Amino acid sequence: MDMKKYLGSKKVEVDRALERYLSEERKYPDNLYKSMHYSVMAGGKRLRPILAIAATEAIDGDVVQVMPLACALEMIHTFSLIHDDLPAMDDDDLRRGMATNHVVFGEGMAVLAGDALLAEAFYCLTHPELLDAVPAPLLLEAVRDISSATGPRGMVGGQVIDIESEGMDLSVAELERLHLYKTGQLLTVSVTSGGKIAGADEKQLAALTRYGEAIGLAFQIADDILDIEGDEEEIGKPIGSDEGNEKATFPAIVGMKESKERAAELIDIAIEALSDFGPSADPLRGIAHYIIERRS
Amino acid sequence: MDMKKYLGSKKVEVDRALERYLSEERKYPDNLYKSMHYSVMAGGKRLRPILAIAATEAIDGDVVQVMPLACALEMIHTFSLIHDDLPAMDDDDLRRGMATNHVVFGEGMAVLAGDALLAEAFYCLTHPELLDAVPAPLLLEAVRDISSATGPRGMVGGQVIDIESEGMDLSVAELERLHLYKTGQLLTVSVTSGGKIAGADEKQLAALTRYGEAIGLAFQIADDILDIEGDEEEIGKPIGSDEGNEKATFPAIVGMKESKERAAELIDIAIEALSDFGPSADPLRGIAHYIIERRS
Repeated sequence: MDMKKYLGSKKVEVDRALERYLSEERKYPDNLYKSMHYSVMAGGKRLRPILAIAATEAIDGDVVQVMPLACALEMIHTFSLIHDDLPAMDDDDLRRGMATNHVVFGEGMAVLAGDALLAEAFYCLTHPELLDAVPAPLLLEAVRDISSATGPRGMVGGQVIDIESEGMDLSVAELERLHLYKTGQLLTVSVTSGGKIAGADEKQLAALTRYGEAIGLAFQIADDILDIEGDEEEIGKPIGSDEGNEKATFPAIVGMKESKERAAELIDIAIEALSDFGPSADPLRGIAHYIIERRS
Repeated sequence: MDMKKYLGSKKVEVDRALERYLSEERKYPDNLYKSMHYSVMAGGKRLRPILAIAATEAIDGDVVQVMPLACALEMIHTFSLIHDDLPAMDDDDLRRGMATNHVVFGEGMAVLAGDALLAEAFYCLTHPELLDAVPAPLLLEAVRDISSATGPRGMVGGQVIDIESEGMDLSVAELERLHLYKTGQLLTVSVTSGGKIAGADEKQLAALTRYGEAIGLAFQIADDILDIEGDEEEIGKPIGSDEGNEKATFPAIVGMKESKERAAELIDIAIEALSDFGPSADPLRGIAHYIIERRS
């Protein structure tokens, strides 16, 4: 299938839905809305929402009904980017080639916009469109899985590990643990929760979990490779910035050749995990390949 | 009833449950846990959890089963205190007589501890103890109500209004709007969600909402009065600090006498709202009186 076309059309759908959910019930301060909107619309790949949609497709679920969940995942991802960029954290002025939230709106507003997006994600996860379409116990499981992958046991915990690891020599196992927390769990839960609310059975969920874990780690290795070999304009930040930040990377620890081999191996594992699925899982298969072939 | 004894014993129960939920599944960085634990255990009145418990009692619900929800509300309250105190926000070094989170753990960790507590609140709201005891659709409503009262439409929106109002002359209506967002909605939802998951009917929920809205505003007026007339040691921050911060207060706008009358009037409204309830609502009635009689 034509993955470029698939990813492009899904991104348009997700962007449109994000605009809609952010604008609904906008009974709150205008500057807060502007700050939230700025970062959500700063042009990401929408990987997490598209993974949720593709997982729903894989088990022949209704793509329309997964949309609030898909957008909730992107709000959580955006919240983490805003807070990670803060002066007290990574202190980044630039993200995807644009000024970061705190540079535009000030530090206080950036903290609050992140907070607002995190809370709003759970509001979106209980959107009437989901409440009407998904059995309540399944939706509660999604809330639980997503909050776990977001909080101390997931992404926020990963950011702490990241900060505490700066300037330290990590082993491959330690680096993999960092990424499992910081990005892996949210990527995995994007896949599994998309499948879960569409009614995946236990066997299907186990396969989606294996797929999600494999592409989660592959995504991070590919990111490290891109930071060295990528095109500055396409990735929107200076090449080699990880090295400057004294961040541990896979190429630095095991070398570029082995990093590429490991990423390719993980993609094989992801594809293998989907072996019981038919053509409906082609988008998931395509995303797996895209993850190590992308240039930004 | 002996409110001092009631509040004291409920606080002990809530503290014990908070310790338990924070320690469960502690598979995350130790410093993050310490930072979260420090602020959660820094000794609040546990007003929001106790309101949820008292609302459950009012409709003869099971007090044990409301505990994860009660603790989730306290985690959200604590998250907001940690972030409000940040240098980029109110820049407070002292809270309840103790050093604030960022003073002890650094600014980055304080941001992350707040984030972690917000995510953990939703994890706690889907705790197996709740999933087993409460019908799933009711629990989803609680997730929706609480996320709404927390995010841009609630507490986080209120903090933005607060920051944007600093140094401005507010009307009473504007000040009431600020407090409705910043504290009122979370206090109200503490009451209504406690009632809701215990099975309150529509009429009971309407009464609990009226009660919650009245005590929510009364609580804030009483806070403003305490800031002028209170005992520095008991409230744990310097007397008159609102004035120093150029924060609008009820006494500053309408005078002390009218502020006290308005608070008393709101408590009458709260008590009146409970007129259809029997003795099981005595804790809620007692809390209403406590709110304007407290000295810290």
